[in-house]
Amino acid sequence: MILPVRLGDRGYDVVIEPGCLQRAGELLDLGRKVMIVTDAGVPRKYAETLAAQCLSPVIHIVAQGEGSKSLGVMEEILVHMLAEGFGRKDCVVAVGGGVPGDLAGFTASCYMRGVDFFNVPTTVLSQVDSSVGGKTAVNLGGIKNVVGAFYQPRKVLIDIDTLRTLSPRQTASGLAEALKMSLTFDRELFGLFETGNPRECLQEIISRSVGLKRAVVEQDEREGGLRKVLNFGHTIGHGIEVVTGLLHGECVGLGMLPMCGESLRPRVEAVLEKLNLPVRCRADREKVYAALLHDKKADSGGITVVRVQEPGSSVMEKIPPEALRPLVEKVVEEA
Amino acid sequence: MILPVRLGDRGYDVVIEPGCLQRAGELLDLGRKVMIVTDAGVPRKYAETLAAQCLSPVIHIVAQGEGSKSLGVMEEILVHMLAEGFGRKDCVVAVGGGVPGDLAGFTASCYMRGVDFFNVPTTVLSQVDSSVGGKTAVNLGGIKNVVGAFYQPRKVLIDIDTLRTLSPRQTASGLAEALKMSLTFDRELFGLFETGNPRECLQEIISRSVGLKRAVVEQDEREGGLRKVLNFGHTIGHGIEVVTGLLHGECVGLGMLPMCGESLRPRVEAVLEKLNLPVRCRADREKVYAALLHDKKADSGGITVVRVQEPGSSVMEKIPPEALRPLVEKVVEEA
Repeated sequence: MILPVRLGDRGYDVVIEPGCLQRAGELLDLGRKVMIVTDAGVPRKYAETLAAQCLSPVIHIVAQGEGSKSLGVMEEILVHMLAEGFGRKDCVVAVGGGVPGDLAGFTASCYMRGVDFFNVPTTVLSQVDSSVGGKTAVNLGGIKNVVGAFYQPRKVLIDIDTLRTLSPRQTASGLAEALKMSLTFDRELFGLFETGNPRECLQEIISRSVGLKRAVVEQDEREGGLRKVLNFGHTIGHGIEVVTGLLHGECVGLGMLPMCGESLRPRVEAVLEKLNLPVRCRADREKVYAALLHDKKADSGGITVVRVQEPGSSVMEKIPPEALRPLVEKVVEEA
Repeated sequence: MILPVRLGDRGYDVVIEPGCLQRAGELLDLGRKVMIVTDAGVPRKYAETLAAQCLSPVIHIVAQGEGSKSLGVMEEILVHMLAEGFGRKDCVVAVGGGVPGDLAGFTASCYMRGVDFFNVPTTVLSQVDSSVGGKTAVNLGGIKNVVGAFYQPRKVLIDIDTLRTLSPRQTASGLAEALKMSLTFDRELFGLFETGNPRECLQEIISRSVGLKRAVVEQDEREGGLRKVLNFGHTIGHGIEVVTGLLHGECVGLGMLPMCGESLRPRVEAVLEKLNLPVRCRADREKVYAALLHDKKADSGGITVVRVQEPGSSVMEKIPPEALRPLVEKVVEEA
């Protein structure tokens, strides 16, 4: 299945097909120098499978985790590209989760003011979320994604087979982002989460989520309005993530709960429990509150949050920072 | 005089007007946090004049010279912006020559994935050349401008009065870039260089040069074709610049000579001499040759050069690297 993302001369296709990594040589233009960026947590065979289909591959492995999303690590990749004689017509491919994707995408955006970038996300989270939309970034000064670019890939390959090496916990974390897409935009998809077995219909969930994300990005490439809805669950979620070290999707799941209407909340809790995702956590509430404010400190005049009363639609609301405190308390128990 | 650069939703105005720095508060949207990036070689009063017209100004002064165009210096500015609580709706202004312009533009392009950027070039070189077109960059691994972005400013203020503090040598260096514009695109402007006194008609030369640059950028924003003509004189020029430390425009002047047709060359030499610009230099020829190849090493299958037979038009040609050696020898005498 091919989903075209229609963004004019920055448009591209998302290929969603089991085994498509094996066909990367046909699907992508790899007859040139190819910088493959992956991290130490990604099975090596994925990068090697890709490399075997390139004319002139170079594999660059960064450490696993958010720590690799830094200007320093980006500089290492840029220096590596210079040393290997990469030119404007060569390219960069990310293989792995959001960390290699965000890092490699930003690197590609600025090497010689922009070379082709391909993304091969190999986690549920990166397949449903960061694969589409061109948000690339690194972290700085403890603030996530504060330095980066909107830079669209030339093509995205989503190979569901790569999810087989993912732990159940990572799979569930990724599904939390798909659940977010369903709550904000797709009642039917939420129905599938409520009544079906999500782990057995990954292909459908991922395809639908990518389709929804694509529609949002087509309308609002640079996050001027509608795209902000995708931050549903992320305000409180980010605060929890910084303090607890839980996985991103686990925190987004927690962060969505206080933003759901009273009647919807138990239904979402039930889905999270079915996925073995947490519905409460223990942490120092003040730290969570401070961390989420820190992350948002650059916004003035209140914090924009997204609320959902009924699956499939949402409202954005600007609230004073203090109003977040009781919301945090709904899901964070004092440690 | 206002020259609009027509690039759709990335379009902007170039204001060319003596004294317009004094009116920056009217002309730019400075009712917010403003990061003013300047360098230690720029008269402090220009940044201060601008700051006095901002709601919430911060001045960041970098060291003078190409050394400040680095990822490390960019990170310092980004950290400064974070510390001052800059948000997406705040902005960055460059005040000075090409170094603050290139550095601040790239910084603005990636802070929170892009904040507004204004450029106030205060040298002839930056007014006629880098002020228009959105090429921003830093250097890495000894290679100029290899990391950056195409990022258009929101507005450019060209205040001819700021040129009064420029040394005659710097003025001449900047005029070499305007001479380049005339040779490649504008026979009449070349006539003005040949028959007039260029130092006494800076306003006209700068306006015409910006107009020419604008037309090129409108047709080829991302340097896919036509814009490469602006590299006239720059291939050999860069090599000379790296080895000799002469000013950029001086080197471009030298670099143009071997690329001019036989009958044109003495005429261009005469103009350079009138401007007190060098027409020969002394250097280790092998080093110049090695340096220009180093800078171009990323291109494969030959080096694209621009040649001019008659003022106002040019041809692009791909030549083998060795063919550059005798051309270098025309202007570089063995030290």
